[in-house]
Amino acid sequence: MDPYQLYYWPGLQGRGEFIRLALAEGGIDYVDVARRPEAEGGGVPSLLRVMREGASVPPLAPPILVAGELVLAQVANILLFLGRRHGLAPSDEAGLYHANQLQLTVADFVAEVHDTHHPIAMGEAYETQQVEAKRRAAYFAKDRIGKYLGYFERVLEGRDSPGGAYVFGADPSYVDTSLFQIMRGIEYAFPRAYARVEPEVPRLRALRDAIASRPRIAAYLGSPERLPFRENGIFRRYPELDEL
Amino acid sequence: MDPYQLYYWPGLQGRGEFIRLALAEGGIDYVDVARRPEAEGGGVPSLLRVMREGASVPPLAPPILVAGELVLAQVANILLFLGRRHGLAPSDEAGLYHANQLQLTVADFVAEVHDTHHPIAMGEAYETQQVEAKRRAAYFAKDRIGKYLGYFERVLEGRDSPGGAYVFGADPSYVDTSLFQIMRGIEYAFPRAYARVEPEVPRLRALRDAIASRPRIAAYLGSPERLPFRENGIFRRYPELDEL
Repeated sequence: MDPYQLYYWPGLQGRGEFIRLALAEGGIDYVDVARRPEAEGGGVPSLLRVMREGASVPPLAPPILVAGELVLAQVANILLFLGRRHGLAPSDEAGLYHANQLQLTVADFVAEVHDTHHPIAMGEAYETQQVEAKRRAAYFAKDRIGKYLGYFERVLEGRDSPGGAYVFGADPSYVDTSLFQIMRGIEYAFPRAYARVEPEVPRLRALRDAIASRPRIAAYLGSPERLPFRENGIFRRYPELDEL
Repeated sequence: MDPYQLYYWPGLQGRGEFIRLALAEGGIDYVDVARRPEAEGGGVPSLLRVMREGASVPPLAPPILVAGELVLAQVANILLFLGRRHGLAPSDEAGLYHANQLQLTVADFVAEVHDTHHPIAMGEAYETQQVEAKRRAAYFAKDRIGKYLGYFERVLEGRDSPGGAYVFGADPSYVDTSLFQIMRGIEYAFPRAYARVEPEVPRLRALRDAIASRPRIAAYLGSPERLPFRENGIFRRYPELDEL
């Protein structure tokens, strides 16, 4: 079978990173199409092309995964597909839906993180909405980081298999790689707010470290494919949004 | 089998309504637990109880569906479960993921609608963030309603089965009942902005009307269980947010 094709905006981690981390953990072969040169069929034109003419049900936005005839969009949907096909999610019915539920809660958190720097208009620059961003970020830092991370900590606390390092026991799932990413991201973007929550989430920190030391994840994180966090993605470090 | 138990904040449609519409179309027996009197085990206490002690993976927020041993949260996740179990989604692999993808895009739209009246802090009253709400709603009305509804119109335009009334052909899915709800909701909340988009979405309007005339949906819409849209849910009519 041809390798999967991933399409995402080149030059940033963004929501595509949740897919890349799962692909890395699974050792799954793929081409990150839009990161290739335009002359080789990549770049933004390739992304726009697959959005325009890709599927019987077209995608509204990237990330997009092309798997043979199947063209899929929406992070949680792509991960559901990869999880079932590649053993990156529990195989029983309850585990399947619980993985999906947790990933959707990760997605809610990611949308809230994004809106701290774009509270008014996602299509306009941060600088045009900085006043509102400061107010939204203050609320987010005060009420939402602790709410979400505290929730995921409770999920880990209540696991059926407390011996395992991961949400569903001894084997990592795409939920674990996603929790790794939000832990790294929130510490990058909101170091002060995160420092206040950190003592309350020991299980999440252990999970983050366990994922970081998985051999394939470690190799990916050390490769040029892992772009750094910076001020063009979901997790942005604007010091004025992280005041105490 | 015992009927399903649905838990959602009583007194409003909210996100629970997407579940209720699918249950209605499927003719699926359920108890809307938190709408029952507290003396009979209902009310908000019942909702808080199921969130606190309901499951191996606890829910963060309602709606919550209890199906035997399974406790599920997140609208799109509950609909995926109901869709597969009750024939409210295509049964082939591509259709399953495409239904999920479309529902997740509905969820993105619903989150954006919500944030028009709560752009800063979802836990605080509208009146505390009305200035920002006006700015966000103006952007939403100008750029986002047409973007999302235009997208769903394109999905209908590109269907494999143009003869059918619904997204996946002749049989309605939970995606159709969800599209019905956002069409009704957006017309309620943003009548002026919607009026500008309406001529561009004839297929969506036809789908909305086809769903409204399904016998079980019509019965549900005419029953006391269908609460009216009003200013305590996702779709709120604040005239100051719908100026031209």
